[in-house]
Amino acid sequence: MRTAVYPGSFDPVTNGHLDVIKRASRIFDRVIVAVLVNSAKKPAFSVAERTQMLSKVTQGIEGVEIDHFNGLLVDYCKKVGATAIIKGLRAVSDFEYEFQMALTNRQIYDGVDTVFLTTTSEHMYLSSSIVREVARYGGDISKFVPQELTEQICRKLIHEEKMAGSGEVEK
Amino acid sequence: MRTAVYPGSFDPVTNGHLDVIKRASRIFDRVIVAVLVNSAKKPAFSVAERTQMLSKVTQGIEGVEIDHFNGLLVDYCKKVGATAIIKGLRAVSDFEYEFQMALTNRQIYDGVDTVFLTTTSEHMYLSSSIVREVARYGGDISKFVPQELTEQICRKLIHEEKMAGSGEVEK
Amino acid sequence: MRTAVYPGSFDPVTNGHLDVIKRASRIFDRVIVAVLVNSAKKPAFSVAERTQMLSKVTQGIEGVEIDHFNGLLVDYCKKVGATAIIKGLRAVSDFEYEFQMALTNRQIYDGVDTVFLTTTSEHMYLSSSIVREVARYGGDISKFVPQELTEQICRKLIHEEKMAGSGEVEK
Amino acid sequence: MRTAVYPGSFDPVTNGHLDVIKRASRIFDRVIVAVLVNSAKKPAFSVAERTQMLSKVTQGIEGVEIDHFNGLLVDYCKKVGATAIIKGLRAVSDFEYEFQMALTNRQIYDGVDTVFLTTTSEHMYLSSSIVREVARYGGDISKFVPQELTEQICRKLIHEEKMAGSGEVEK
Amino acid sequence: MRTAVYPGSFDPVTNGHLDVIKRASRIFDRVIVAVLVNSAKKPAFSVAERTQMLSKVTQGIEGVEIDHFNGLLVDYCKKVGATAIIKGLRAVSDFEYEFQMALTNRQIYDGVDTVFLTTTSEHMYLSSSIVREVARYGGDISKFVPQELTEQICRKLIHEEKMAGSGEVEK
Amino acid sequence: MRTAVYPGSFDPVTNGHLDVIKRASRIFDRVIVAVLVNSAKKPAFSVAERTQMLSKVTQGIEGVEIDHFNGLLVDYCKKVGATAIIKGLRAVSDFEYEFQMALTNRQIYDGVDTVFLTTTSEHMYLSSSIVREVARYGGDISKFVPQELTEQICRKLIHEEKMAGSGEVEK
Repeated sequence: MRTAVYPGSFDPVTNGHLDVIKRASRIFDRVIVAVLVNSAKKPAFSVAERTQMLSKVTQGIEGVEIDHFNGLLVDYCKKVGATAIIKGLRAVSDFEYEFQMALTNRQIYDGVDTVFLTTTSEHMYLSSSIVREVARYGGDISKFVPQELTEQICRKLIHEEKMAGSGEVEK
Repeated sequence: MRTAVYPGSFDPVTNGHLDVIKRASRIFDRVIVAVLVNSAKKPAFSVAERTQMLSKVTQGIEGVEIDHFNGLLVDYCKKVGATAIIKGLRAVSDFEYEFQMALTNRQIYDGVDTVFLTTTSEHMYLSSSIVREVARYGGDISKFVPQELTEQICRKLIHEEKMAGSGEVEK
Repeated sequence: MRTAVYPGSFDPVTNGHLDVIKRASRIFDRVIVAVLVNSAKKPAFSVAERTQMLSKVTQGIEGVEIDHFNGLLVDYCKKVGATAIIKGLRAVSDFEYEFQMALTNRQIYDGVDTVFLTTTSEHMYLSSSIVREVARYGGDISKFVPQELTEQICRKLIHEEKMAGSGEVEK
Repeated sequence: MRTAVYPGSFDPVTNGHLDVIKRASRIFDRVIVAVLVNSAKKPAFSVAERTQMLSKVTQGIEGVEIDHFNGLLVDYCKKVGATAIIKGLRAVSDFEYEFQMALTNRQIYDGVDTVFLTTTSEHMYLSSSIVREVARYGGDISKFVPQELTEQICRKLIHEEKMAGSGEVEK
Repeated sequence: MRTAVYPGSFDPVTNGHLDVIKRASRIFDRVIVAVLVNSAKKPAFSVAERTQMLSKVTQGIEGVEIDHFNGLLVDYCKKVGATAIIKGLRAVSDFEYEFQMALTNRQIYDGVDTVFLTTTSEHMYLSSSIVREVARYGGDISKFVPQELTEQICRKLIHEEKMAGSGEVEK
Repeated sequence: MRTAVYPGSFDPVTNGHLDVIKRASRIFDRVIVAVLVNSAKKPAFSVAERTQMLSKVTQGIEGVEIDHFNGLLVDYCKKVGATAIIKGLRAVSDFEYEFQMALTNRQIYDGVDTVFLTTTSEHMYLSSSIVREVARYGGDISKFVPQELTEQICRKLIHEEKMAGSGEVEK
């Protein structure tokens, strides 16, 4: 049985992520979507919220599991018995960074390969940070995220924006 | 009458920005230079200072107005009746991000097109952050910003650097 | 009246080109789509075929004219009284070359600006050479070119492929 | 059983290609290395030579088959029952072109995904054209191609260079 | 005597940096490796630690000196009599930023040229930030940094990680 | 004494090339500008014309010699005792190809380093092929090439264009 890990922040999951998950599930027997718990960055959604949203939208996709991890990605892959890391490529700038990480991971542990997939062109330039920005100002995110999450995402982010207040005030 | 919005931080305005404004005014009847009020970033100059500097250097360029905005750019465009967003392209890394934003804006609202212009080659690699860095250490910024702003910019940034103190101290 | 030139090979015109033409016509009063007659390259379609196809698909778009030109683009712009050159941007590699040309054109003649537009994401990676390649092998090009041209393009290119014979033969 | 096609010119096969083949065979049950018979390009090695060299160096890698094809890649994938196309990524310029092809192939036939793999960093900037150029002038290609092919490749390419004569002659 | 400055954060020095230093010492009579004291960023190692590590690993390379500086790079070059700035290039994203800085530095002071060198391909995608990340989680960094520094770097970074605590905690 | 080779087609030499030669002569004791005799490409100017033009414009720049070579660049470097190869970088697309060649050359022969220099921003996007294209159609190339060559280049290229005839003729 071939296992692949699809790591990411998923803050929140987008239609682009979901498209990659579906494609990965056609190639691998088991795909673990693994939320990265990164102590440095302050996410908009908690790890619990992010895994809950991922579970909701991947229901019914065969072979997909949701998890989260801390530490080095290759250590996590060893632990769960994965021989491949899935990465979704969108733009050239993604590519450079992902390349660097793929080569580094191979230097640390050669038992896992990085496999790059692309999303459909309509999701190509979509990112979680754009979803957050649009949602914060009350824009329509229904084209960017799975339908069943639209309300949950907007509710949290619009609220957060209000709490942050009006930013720079001057006159 | 065709209206375009030229959004940006303009922190501070550079000769590259000014070149784009002049070129945009040859294409559109009305060009609104719109300072983005971004609550996340701490700018070097206040919104009031930035609009004042822009007003000063665009005097006499026909059809140019200065404004500031908060929230989603496409909402601002709708409000002011603009059918085009102006972006100045310098380098490849700019291009990728701007592409992503152009496609996103079109998804949210298809009534506005993003129009990319380039500056002359001598301003191509010029950015506000470089101007700030050079000015802070007392370097000569007269080639980078409109002449009438040189003194105002240096005065503020050199002062700010002094207030920040000597940074990391060790022996 | 503001006139822009949209130059290209259009060998053949694609849905991506058509999208750029429509957007350009919203910005400029008059858009001249100008087929480049390049003696160096052997096109798949003659200049007459290319201008005929462009005329067919741009019927009803206000302010659009079809023409062809030889020699330097800036000379052609001067002749027709254009103050802008339209370029459609797709990918980063396009961008670099177009940048180089935009800066060169400005050095030769500063009276014309290059204006970059983007197509919708579904057409972003579409090119005439891909259309030709798919058509030659009998693939379905109906998603890539205007519907009314599908038959004309396929008829010519499949025929051409047959004439070229079976290429390298070996056993 | 999951089948993938690894298409290419392999003119000649390099250590970089071989590395990708090995990695692909760890992910897929069956990997068909398919030499593209392109009537437009004049290859240095015939299709028969290229398939023979590929067979030689992939002996003993489980699940690997060698074949050649003509026409559209997606048609070939359908014919052999493949659900994935393998592509080796080296540099950013590769990436853009491959992206374009991946999106085009998906538009024509959505039943096949493009899977990008990377080679080890020491092979990252290696290409068949560089191997040919170095071999033609009698340089050492033993770091670039599988050892068992070195002599065969050099013999052919040095001979070819001699036949081509001394190029531009002037005094 | 030709003097070059190789500026950087060196937080910590990697095998890639060391490779560039060795190559630079073959071209210039005197190479000053200059640690940038940047008040904005919080480094993992103090300036004293970074200069000590650099001194240790460059012992025995002819013409190399270690120093640190504050303020504008061109001012530092003038002070030490350097006519060249050394930059190590790895990836395309590096290149763009370094280009921008090279052109800016030339605008401020034309007496110094920026000279770009590349590292060997095995170090090409190596960066100090990757070394820090791998070390923090107890990964093996012996392929990335000079052997004599491995212990010192790990000791500090693993300790730091423990002090930072377990990051985001939730259930 | 440090010797560097600056290889290229120089078909014809541009102000960008001349700028790189001047900068290289400040770093190296001896700079050999070496015209590549490439049997595959049909140049616009013969090797004799290209070396003559280079000799004319580099008169008076200390330590510069003009030569031509055939075969592998590293073999030529060994022959003339050079320890460095000079390359002028303009745009990102240049960079990728030059990187590939630099790494390949190092694999073949580690005794020579590739040193990348940049030109001033006004020459950044200048290339010989653009000079040829502008000259062929009677455009003004005086900003792109050394003044003393303008007439010689135009005379040859305009003549050549006339000989080529009117290209594709149709009605």
